[in-house]
Amino acid sequence: MALIDTPYLLFLGDAPDPLAAKVAQGIKDWRPEFAIGQYRMEGCQADMGIPDLDIKEAIAAGCKTLVIGVANRGGVISQAWKKVLVEALEEGLDLASGLHNLLRDEPDLVAVAEACGRQLHDVRIPAVKYPIANGEKRKGKRCLAVGTDCSVGKMYTALCLEREMRDRGMKATFRATGQTGILITGDGVPLDAVIADFMAGSIEYLTPDNEADHWDLIEGQGSLFHVSYSGVTMALIHGGQPDALILSHEPTRANMRGLPGYQLPSLEALRDMALALAKVANPECQVVGISVNTQKMGEDEAKAYLAKVEDEMGLPATDPFRFGAGKLVDALAAI
Amino acid sequence: MALIDTPYLLFLGDAPDPLAAKVAQGIKDWRPEFAIGQYRMEGCQADMGIPDLDIKEAIAAGCKTLVIGVANRGGVISQAWKKVLVEALEEGLDLASGLHNLLRDEPDLVAVAEACGRQLHDVRIPAVKYPIANGEKRKGKRCLAVGTDCSVGKMYTALCLEREMRDRGMKATFRATGQTGILITGDGVPLDAVIADFMAGSIEYLTPDNEADHWDLIEGQGSLFHVSYSGVTMALIHGGQPDALILSHEPTRANMRGLPGYQLPSLEALRDMALALAKVANPECQVVGISVNTQKMGEDEAKAYLAKVEDEMGLPATDPFRFGAGKLVDALAAI
Repeated sequence: MALIDTPYLLFLGDAPDPLAAKVAQGIKDWRPEFAIGQYRMEGCQADMGIPDLDIKEAIAAGCKTLVIGVANRGGVISQAWKKVLVEALEEGLDLASGLHNLLRDEPDLVAVAEACGRQLHDVRIPAVKYPIANGEKRKGKRCLAVGTDCSVGKMYTALCLEREMRDRGMKATFRATGQTGILITGDGVPLDAVIADFMAGSIEYLTPDNEADHWDLIEGQGSLFHVSYSGVTMALIHGGQPDALILSHEPTRANMRGLPGYQLPSLEALRDMALALAKVANPECQVVGISVNTQKMGEDEAKAYLAKVEDEMGLPATDPFRFGAGKLVDALAAI
Repeated sequence: MALIDTPYLLFLGDAPDPLAAKVAQGIKDWRPEFAIGQYRMEGCQADMGIPDLDIKEAIAAGCKTLVIGVANRGGVISQAWKKVLVEALEEGLDLASGLHNLLRDEPDLVAVAEACGRQLHDVRIPAVKYPIANGEKRKGKRCLAVGTDCSVGKMYTALCLEREMRDRGMKATFRATGQTGILITGDGVPLDAVIADFMAGSIEYLTPDNEADHWDLIEGQGSLFHVSYSGVTMALIHGGQPDALILSHEPTRANMRGLPGYQLPSLEALRDMALALAKVANPECQVVGISVNTQKMGEDEAKAYLAKVEDEMGLPATDPFRFGAGKLVDALAAI
């Protein structure tokens, strides 16, 4: 059951460019059935290619929640936005947001939401009191992408795997652990905002017992080799008790994201470290493949790189967003 | 500068047995200069062997803070306790507590503290907005104890090292990362209550740039091999960027604490995993010795075990609380 009622009206506001609306784009790309319409204000430079609906039209079309699918300027929810958000609440929509400044910190929105009996979902804040992890073996299968660095394509990898598995008729669920993933699917754990003692437990909660042939595709976070966030990654590996790891990499990066003095590890180093740690929670865990984010490479260059990685690592390698996730799903299906 | 004003009046309440007062015992053992007196209620079965003082006598003796050095029964701060705590606030003492139920959640204590201008320190709750770790190399030296399991003696190891170093005239500071450690020293980071994204940053904050020959002795938490808390341990290793690791072990344990299905790792496995991860943040890191909690072994058995471990691991091994920390400090001083 989703935390956030679907389907959505995607609020694009006064997005200065398409990149500012990347949350909306993610929802439209990965959950098109949730993206009934978009709401664009004057000057909006983003367009999802779905119907422009006003609040009343959105409700008539079945929308349940207005999702803020755009980054705001200067960390302030402007009065121009407020007017739309208040109307949405008054007419019967919930609001959902991944903004740093919270909906719940806006007294006018809180007052209207209470008066109208609507929900304000700030997906940066955990909505659940998570347990401490108990480490008990759960049924069903789990796959986790672990990266050589942060922001190398772990979320897209998991979403690509889910889509490919569902296309094949396999049972598969993307499990969101970050703000964008939660808004895309309507549910998940905002892991970077969870209290330290409950991190692994939150992932156990997110990926419960399931059918033996069901795959949870867990959104990765951080990297074991990124000193700012490695504890979060560790909790995913032990809370998720994955059966399969996929190594994620972006080959053109000069240093670890935000850490100028730190080099990226090799894929071999990532494989050995992540697998040894994963076996603590699941001795059967395997590294099954490699997901490379090739967006900064030409097509020939990307294919040559993937062939080299496959040869060196002895594992299937692809850019699942660019060339399809088939190889990786073949490897997972063989477990 | 300490978060909590010292020295202390140690409140033992109506402790049913000495073990219930282990926080007070820790303060008395490790910071005797802070333990000016104790406050015992009728029926108290604990005794620190220091003067019994009432509130007025404690203030006359220079006490600044009443520390709740005892576990309460049933998670409730009783009316009998309240009477003493209110008197302490009214007479001019701050209160400090590591109890699960917070002082700040008791409206009567909050009201009196506000009226009297006194502080309520709940050391389970972070008092600081910590930064995200930046991974920059800091001056000074740092030592971290990492365990095969939780609760194997990492805090006592760090405190023993601090005492031995100070006895030798070395510059050394115990850095508390848990409730008991914070109450002992008056300052620290309650790491298990820190938000995930800020864990490593909180340890950078706790162990800042220092003199080149100064040692931070960082209190360890959890274990890389304990699936409930491994993320916390990971953040200590990367946020602390230790120059030296000490392996901590309790040899009589049948399984990981609270995880019946999980075996303890070998000291070799702990050494290899912890060192590889520590080198991400500090390529010069070394494993310098082994700290064994031998409290459940006879003296001959303990000594034989330590000799065997030294032989097998090629590293100095001791129970620093029972046999002294000299060997470990020798090894640290040689770095």
